[in-house]
Amino acid sequence: MLTLSSDFGTPYPAAMKGVFLSNTDARLVDVSHEFPRQDVRTAAFWLREVLPYFPPAVHLVVVDPGVGTDRAALVVRAGDHALVGPDNGVLRPVARQLAEGDDIEAFVIDDDEADSSTFHGRDVFAPAAAAVHEVGIDHIESLDRCTPADGIEQLSFPEPTHRDDAIAGEVLVVDGFGNAITNVPGEVLDDSFGDSITVNDEQAPVERSYAHVESGERLVTVGSHENVELAVNRGRGERAFDVGVGDPVVLTDV
Amino acid sequence: MLTLSSDFGTPYPAAMKGVFLSNTDARLVDVSHEFPRQDVRTAAFWLREVLPYFPPAVHLVVVDPGVGTDRAALVVRAGDHALVGPDNGVLRPVARQLAEGDDIEAFVIDDDEADSSTFHGRDVFAPAAAAVHEVGIDHIESLDRCTPADGIEQLSFPEPTHRDDAIAGEVLVVDGFGNAITNVPGEVLDDSFGDSITVNDEQAPVERSYAHVESGERLVTVGSHENVELAVNRGRGERAFDVGVGDPVVLTDV
Amino acid sequence: MLTLSSDFGTPYPAAMKGVFLSNTDARLVDVSHEFPRQDVRTAAFWLREVLPYFPPAVHLVVVDPGVGTDRAALVVRAGDHALVGPDNGVLRPVARQLAEGDDIEAFVIDDDEADSSTFHGRDVFAPAAAAVHEVGIDHIESLDRCTPADGIEQLSFPEPTHRDDAIAGEVLVVDGFGNAITNVPGEVLDDSFGDSITVNDEQAPVERSYAHVESGERLVTVGSHENVELAVNRGRGERAFDVGVGDPVVLTDV
Repeated sequence: MLTLSSDFGTPYPAAMKGVFLSNTDARLVDVSHEFPRQDVRTAAFWLREVLPYFPPAVHLVVVDPGVGTDRAALVVRAGDHALVGPDNGVLRPVARQLAEGDDIEAFVIDDDEADSSTFHGRDVFAPAAAAVHEVGIDHIESLDRCTPADGIEQLSFPEPTHRDDAIAGEVLVVDGFGNAITNVPGEVLDDSFGDSITVNDEQAPVERSYAHVESGERLVTVGSHENVELAVNRGRGERAFDVGVGDPVVLTDV
Repeated sequence: MLTLSSDFGTPYPAAMKGVFLSNTDARLVDVSHEFPRQDVRTAAFWLREVLPYFPPAVHLVVVDPGVGTDRAALVVRAGDHALVGPDNGVLRPVARQLAEGDDIEAFVIDDDEADSSTFHGRDVFAPAAAAVHEVGIDHIESLDRCTPADGIEQLSFPEPTHRDDAIAGEVLVVDGFGNAITNVPGEVLDDSFGDSITVNDEQAPVERSYAHVESGERLVTVGSHENVELAVNRGRGERAFDVGVGDPVVLTDV
Repeated sequence: MLTLSSDFGTPYPAAMKGVFLSNTDARLVDVSHEFPRQDVRTAAFWLREVLPYFPPAVHLVVVDPGVGTDRAALVVRAGDHALVGPDNGVLRPVARQLAEGDDIEAFVIDDDEADSSTFHGRDVFAPAAAAVHEVGIDHIESLDRCTPADGIEQLSFPEPTHRDDAIAGEVLVVDGFGNAITNVPGEVLDDSFGDSITVNDEQAPVERSYAHVESGERLVTVGSHENVELAVNRGRGERAFDVGVGDPVVLTDV
């Protein structure tokens, strides 16, 4: 199985699919091609949340603002999975998640002969991912184009800080519904369901899901990623709480 | 075969695909993940129009503004098909269409152990749909998690009314091209092609397809759903006729 | 293998998939359903760029502003591939590319019995594409619904002109990143990398890829289609160069 993730929109992913299908009969599954363009952090967050639900697979990931520069092209073995994409940090959080504490092994893909300098998804990563799929995740080192890498680019998400009776975190991403997903672990709300807490100096109820408040009303809940989420029932939480990616979220009275 | 329909946009559907593929080798087919968010009626309309073109399959449907409340999670057997989704009416029109006059049987899915309160698509519906696929549509009752339901939530579309020489209907949905699809059956236009009729007090030609009028001109036609449609050749009918979902459409001189 | 391309957005493509899957077990691959609506030229460009990366397949193409008029419905055999779609020019550039100099053979599909006049993607093209897939690309003439066509509608892209020390081309399409893709072959830049050239009277650096200039800065590069492209690193080239589809692009000092 091969999964595809990118910020390409359309129709560039289809060229990658054509390359795949010229090299393998594997099942192809689109994860998303609508990651915010050239936003490595947001893609890294979503990949970490989503890819662990898949059975062992080769995951192509192309969010690659540095295409055609000297950033390396990588294959990363993480647990039973392989990740193929640019060495810009986008692979790191999901690799750690998939490895479940085991070592991550990285290989540099030789891209000297790429047909283009602007579309390595098609010309470097897709052929490499197909080759990894065909040879098997346990045999990446048998591919001539792959040589062991020194390491992979770091990318980590900030941890919330606890001070007195407050927890100070931040918004990591805003999803398509407008839910502002923070870096605060949901368990801090364990004793607060049905009560209200203070978010950035304003009161909001803590509920198990959106429809526990009236339509259009704000709430604080635990999202499916198990983090605290600022939401509005049938509305957009990021607007009601006036926060965007990277903005501070201070919870008090928890 | 498993089909997927939701209002999730991206990338949440990928988590559901990962769950599917961890539980079944079935073919996956995306119907749409771009249904208007939390708009149960519009999704119900499109599912009724589209799913009957599929061969027998298990259809996952997640347009679920009440996730995490006490609305039931259902499996519905309708003809040779099964539908899996929330009991909020979204399943009803398509179930009736697929059943073709036969009985509809509904089962409640036990969701007490769901990992989240906010993403039952991933944590309740996708595992249930995979299980139904694996056991077979004729054997839903053999699944421990499924118990017979008392019924399913109603949702029906309004019928047009005939008065004197006029037919009064309404706009059910507006499609991506801007065609305003009404609840008036197309057969009322059978004798009018090439003529003009009156729509909400304004004249418009009745034509078999869009390009029978000049680019930018209005027309009344019969859409692929066999209903009367208000359209503009290479333009947006809902703007030219100044109508939106739920607005009245009165046809006279038919 | 069957590929699907259209300007339908959602959810109309799902009806075509249902028809396919009722008639064939073939693998289905979405190329794009987000081609600009009723824009035959842009779709023709992208199909020519993308479909040649696929192994032999039947390609359904529905960008069809003339649906329901007397424009023919076609099957086109081009090399090892077949294309199925309306005879409005959209098939021509990709057919020539796939045929690689060999003859293109076209067949008219009998559409007299179509269920609708407004959705031939579902009612004419999808069933024909499934039939072509099942009978095989070498046996199109054995299908009763297919009769030899006199030819296919022309559509070609303008060639750039060379005058004195300048090359005068135009913008063919703007991609989702905002890159303005011209009709000027990339090889004219072969000796200019690292230098700057003049684009419509303004200077811009020539670079191998986007990130060779600072974020927000303009550049001229060779895109993955091997044409000259006007771009901005992490920004939108068409805005910075103030050009849209069809606008002239004059390169001097090359």
